[in-house]
Amino acid sequence: MTGALELRPAGPADGAALWDILRPAFRAGDSYAVDRDISQSAALRYWTEGEKTAYLAVRSDQAVGSYYIRPNQPGGGAHVCNCGFVTHPQARGQRVARTMLEHALKTAKAAGYSAMQFNFVLASNAAAIHLWQSYGFAEVGRLPQAFEHPALGLIDALVMHRAL
Amino acid sequence: MTGALELRPAGPADGAALWDILRPAFRAGDSYAVDRDISQSAALRYWTEGEKTAYLAVRSDQAVGSYYIRPNQPGGGAHVCNCGFVTHPQARGQRVARTMLEHALKTAKAAGYSAMQFNFVLASNAAAIHLWQSYGFAEVGRLPQAFEHPALGLIDALVMHRAL
Repeated sequence: MTGALELRPAGPADGAALWDILRPAFRAGDSYAVDRDISQSAALRYWTEGEKTAYLAVRSDQAVGSYYIRPNQPGGGAHVCNCGFVTHPQARGQRVARTMLEHALKTAKAAGYSAMQFNFVLASNAAAIHLWQSYGFAEVGRLPQAFEHPALGLIDALVMHRAL
Repeated sequence: MTGALELRPAGPADGAALWDILRPAFRAGDSYAVDRDISQSAALRYWTEGEKTAYLAVRSDQAVGSYYIRPNQPGGGAHVCNCGFVTHPQARGQRVARTMLEHALKTAKAAGYSAMQFNFVLASNAAAIHLWQSYGFAEVGRLPQAFEHPALGLIDALVMHRAL
């Protein structure tokens, strides 16, 4: 862990770097509701296509995390954004998620969104919940037994929200 | 209103009938978070593509309603389904939504889902909320000011859920 963490939009040349970050999370299947066997191309589409804009967190030329931002709903719901965050396993404990969140909050506000919502925060993910709460996110929903966790079985997922 | 209401899967020949049902709801913009100017082809993709299976409610050869069913999440969340329902304006008050819901609950159970969740029930939609509650759906989340209603301004949306 040396050098500053920089955030920049992910481009067409970043597919391999993105996959390097996403693959461990998706294969583990304990943080995102994504098919654990998802292919690289499908994973990259999931993370970057449609209305999503993806950012890479880079330190010393090494991509260590990524987040996306998108309107959470079209039409009358487009003023609320949704984001997803993944940190590479080897970069945990280095404030990568916190730095990405701060960048996402600024990006969302600059884009004119009035709120940010996370739709599916696993109740088992204490570190993430603690981080979101410390930045003012409140639990606005709890989805009972919404996720089949590979080790814990059926667990709840939270909907978290904050105004911008 | 004559004849029995029958439910059948929507097929490739049902595009015009589906659009006839969806268009009034999407153009009004007061029940679904969909772009009010959505094109016919985009609306049909929205309602039928991806993991969605759409059904038509037909009475006396007239399509009067439609619903879709899909996994609400991929991967570890695929045991919970999500549905959307639309009744043609001229068929309101004829128990179309209720009949579609009963069909959806049976379809979901037969497909092996263990719960059904509605992600974005507008707080202004009292008739729908009452119907869902009467079939055992509980409010598990309330998304503050999640929808810009054309007449009411910013209103909340509910997340509703029941086990199957």
